Parts: sequence; C-alpha cells; structure tokens
Amino acid sequence: MKPPPLIEDIEAAHARIAPHLHRTPILTSRSLDCATGAELLFKCENFQKTGSFKARGATNAVLTLPPDVTGVATHSSGNHAAALAHAARLRALPAHVVMPATAPKAKRSAVEAYGGTVISCAPTLAAREEAAARVVAETGAALVPPFDDPRVVAGQGTAAVELIADAPGPLDLILVPVGGGGLLAGTLLAASAHAPRAAVIGVEPEAADDAARGFQSRMLQPQVLPVATIADGVTTAMSPMTFEIMCWLARDIVTVSEAAIAAAMRCIWERLKIIVEPSCALPLAAILERKVDVEGRRVGIILTGGNVDLDRLPWTI
Amino acid sequence: MKPPPLIEDIEAAHARIAPHLHRTPILTSRSLDCATGAELLFKCENFQKTGSFKARGATNAVLTLPPDVTGVATHSSGNHAAALAHAARLRALPAHVVMPATAPKAKRSAVEAYGGTVISCAPTLAAREEAAARVVAETGAALVPPFDDPRVVAGQGTAAVELIADAPGPLDLILVPVGGGGLLAGTLLAASAHAPRAAVIGVEPEAADDAARGFQSRMLQPQVLPVATIADGVTTAMSPMTFEIMCWLARDIVTVSEAAIAAAMRCIWERLKIIVEPSCALPLAAILERKVDVEGRRVGIILTGGNVDLDRLPWTI
Repeated sequence: MKPPPLIEDIEAAHARIAPHLHRTPILTSRSLDCATGAELLFKCENFQKTGSFKARGATNAVLTLPPDVTGVATHSSGNHAAALAHAARLRALPAHVVMPATAPKAKRSAVEAYGGTVISCAPTLAAREEAAARVVAETGAALVPPFDDPRVVAGQGTAAVELIADAPGPLDLILVPVGGGGLLAGTLLAASAHAPRAAVIGVEPEAADDAARGFQSRMLQPQVLPVATIADGVTTAMSPMTFEIMCWLARDIVTVSEAAIAAAMRCIWERLKIIVEPSCALPLAAILERKVDVEGRRVGIILTGGNVDLDRLPWTI
Repeated sequence: MKPPPLIEDIEAAHARIAPHLHRTPILTSRSLDCATGAELLFKCENFQKTGSFKARGATNAVLTLPPDVTGVATHSSGNHAAALAHAARLRALPAHVVMPATAPKAKRSAVEAYGGTVISCAPTLAAREEAAARVVAETGAALVPPFDDPRVVAGQGTAAVELIADAPGPLDLILVPVGGGGLLAGTLLAASAHAPRAAVIGVEPEAADDAARGFQSRMLQPQVLPVATIADGVTTAMSPMTFEIMCWLARDIVTVSEAAIAAAMRCIWERLKIIVEPSCALPLAAILERKVDVEGRRVGIILTGGNVDLDRLPWTI
C-alpha cells in the first residue's frame, strides 16, 4: 500500500495549486434548505478548471514531479484525463493519455484541446494498463494515476479545505461521492484536521457499491461488473490506500438508487441553475432518500464536476 | 407615453432592492474568450431570486407603492409573474396574477409557491388585459406591468449598474436581449451615466424583430404574430416609453437566427456550466453569427434568467 498523505501535504498542495486553479464558490438554495430542514452548502467544482475537482489532484501531482521529468501519462476515460493534460501544460510537458476507443468524443477532444495526446486502446482495464505501461516505457513519462497516489489524494483534499474555510460556520456533516476514493480520502484527511467535529459520509450508487461493502466488511471489495449506473464518474473500485483511509476516518458509506440520482441531479439543475454530472447528485440523492439525517445540520456537499453529455440526459431518455 | 425614469431613480432603486435580492456574480470563460477574441463578462441573473432579473423591477415597483396599498396585480405568463408574487410577499401583500390557461404548470406553481393567486384566462392579450382590469376593479390591487412602468425600468437598470461596477475595467460594449424593452431601457439609462463610453446593443430573434424594425424606421412597430422562436422571454412588443429610450440611446439592434440561439444556449451550458433560458443566449448568438464585432473588446452580457423546462431542450427535440 502506498503511504497516505499527511495534512501538511494537503496544505502544501493547496498553496501549490491555488495560483493555477479556481477557488470555486459555495452555492445555497433557500427552497432546498426549506425542503430538507438543513443548511446545505454546495461546493461547486463543476466551475473548476477542466470542469471537475480532478484538476486539483492532477495539478498537485504534476507540480511535484522532479525537474528532469520529460512527460506525464495516465489511463482514464473521464475527468482525470483532461485534468492531467491541463496540468501538464502548466509545465510545458507532453501528456500521454490512454483512453478506450469507446470513450465519448467530447472527452477525447477535451484532452486534445489542452494539448494532450490520446492513445486509443481496447475498452478493458487490462488493455488500458498495458497501453499505459508501454507509453511509460517508450517515452519515459511519469505515470500519474487517477486516485491511487498520495499527491493526487492531497490535491483532492484541497476542495474540502476551501469548503470548510468558506462555510459560514462549523460544518456538522460533509457528503462526498465515492468512486476510486481519491476525493473521499482527501476530504477525510482535510476534515480530520480542519473540521474534526464534522462527520464525513461517502455516497455511492447501489449499482456500484464496492465501497459500502468494503466499509461494512472491512475488506477491500472488487466492483461487480458490469456496472449499470448513470453516475459514470464513480464506477471504479477503490485502491488499498484510499480504502484504508476510508476505514479509519469515514462515519458511514451509504448507497442510493438510480431514480434518486436522476431526481437529485434534476433538482440541482432546476434549483441551483447549474450543470452538474450525475455523480455530483449522489449526496443530495442520499438526503432525498433519507439515507442520512440532515435535519437542523449544516451540511457541506462537494459537487464534483459538470462535464455531462447534453444529448444524453437521464430524464429525456 | 409614461415618463422614463432618471439615473437617480435607478440608483434609488438599487439601494431599495439590494437588501432583498442577490448581487449576482459575473462569470467568465477562457475558452469562450479565446474563441471570440474578446473579454466576455456574463452577469448571471439566472442566479437571481425567482430565477430572473424580473425580480429587480417587480421588487422596486412593489417597494415604492404607497403605504395604504392593499394588493398587487399583473398579467404575465413568464418570469414577471413569479417576480411579482415574490416581491409582494416582502410587504405581505396579496398578489393576483392573471395567466393564460395554456401557461406551463411550472410557471403557475412558481407563483403559488411565493403565495400568489393565479387567475386563469383565455390565451389572448385581450382576455388577459380584461381579466387583469377586472381583478384590479374588484380587489383594489395596484397594477404592476411587466415593463411599461418607470419603476420597473428603474429596477431592471440595476443589473447593469452592478455589471459596470463589478467589471474588471471599463466596458466597451453591453449586449442585452430585447423583448418588451424593460431591461434594454434600464440598461441604456444606467450605462449612459455609469459607462458613457460603452455602446449598448440590443439583440432579438429574427422571428420576433419588432425592436429592430422600430429602431430602423424610428416608428414603434407591432410584433408580427404568431411568433415562432425558442426565446419565449422576448416575444412581447415594446411600449412607447421603452421604444423612445431605445431610439435615444441604443447603438444598434441586431437579430439572430433560431439555430444560432440554440447553439449559443448550448455553448453557455457546456462552457459556463450554468442553466440559462433560450432568451439569455441572444447576445452570444449575435457574437457567434458575427452580427456584432467584439474583437479585442471588453463585453458585458446580461444573462436574463434560468427558468427553463428541462423536458423541452432545443437540442433534444
């Protein structure tokens, strides 16, 4: 297992990446507060550079690479791909991104728009890992994984640092989606130092519940394939490091139905007037399905990103 | 013709309504700036109370009514209806809103959610005016028109006051949609005092071009019915007062195609990650269709509202 980052690493990450990224706003909705009986604070990482919080971890990782690095590489079909290409440009490094041939064209275009090179492969994890290893061997690029990396986890933790600092008072609860666990792990470490009285709860789809099963059994669980959820950002299984941090520090991991995810996503669009990905909607879905009790509490929610295919909305299918 | 408001009226309106409404943010997009060669500043009235700038004019009108007023009334099928109901609640006044029976259920629900009473009528202007006159006669309520009212125009002008004050430097150009002309008139008056070097240009759909024809001919023009545009917020014809202000102060009025409106709306959703109504997209549509020259200029754009039916998006029909 890779060593987890320390709170000092998160604070150093924040100072390092802040000049290059947005300090995203917190939005609130009086009607949602009335409907839930809580004070909901939405940290808008959909407004972050590249459209997701992944810019934080990727930027921190790239900026901490040694001076003689010649390039960076990763395999990703999602937001980490664009985030790494964007971060690499800050150091004028080439970025090699292995993507399955089935990845949406918009995701490929985003990588290319930031100057990254896309390498296509077959849509299996084995093919992706093999292609990434080959790129690293051929180019000497440094591999920057999407979440199983202490530099990446430290970067993701900076979103919670800002959420806690910018909230109008102490948070009682922080809700985050769980995929590979990079955001959850970073949030847990940040909250343990900066908001020790806040309970942190992870939320995942019922259809991709490896974290919940792992949290219950205290054994790292594989994802059961195929994964059928609209929350395409959280279908990855956790790594040993993110799993350990979750087991140490999380208050709970809860799961939500697909119907609740779609309803919560629509609710955020209609009430907050912002575009968010389905994965963003997991925390509000947990509130709407009463999987967490928020009555009378000040609740921080990290909205993870806004890169959504407008042609494929869950309520127009 | 009703007398136009003075800049002092707009400044008084701003002080009066500010405690009750949001100072909405200005958003920017590096990719849109690169694509257009301009510095685009989007004033986000979609985040305003009730979801549109109409809250400004309605609130100013309601707060300036005499102390013995017993209620307010209007006829509207759109954002002014909810804005008036919201404003009336600030003074605990009943709000009577005449709406065509064909108005979307969401618009009725918004009025009722703010405590207003909806009176249904046949979907013609004559029936609406007749029903509103009857409500006023029966209840003694004060009529608050959606735009042909100096108090309303003064309130709408406060959006430009904030845009000019919060911009990172002097504006070269301000672009606003034109429907009844309340926002355009308020913006023109505010800019003439606070940004006298900024050119203000109104944008309307080719399919609802009464303002452009009027601006060219210097004669108030009727709207040619039926109006076939997705920009449902700007289908009204102007009033003598808003028309006069436009003729005095506007640099130009340009028109855009339906395809450009849909493309610009999608562009705002994808790049800015915010929900805006089709009417909001008119200024960006004019830039994309090269109806205005923005190269090298700092351009303020007022995004008018975010109340859109998510089941009926122009790119999913």
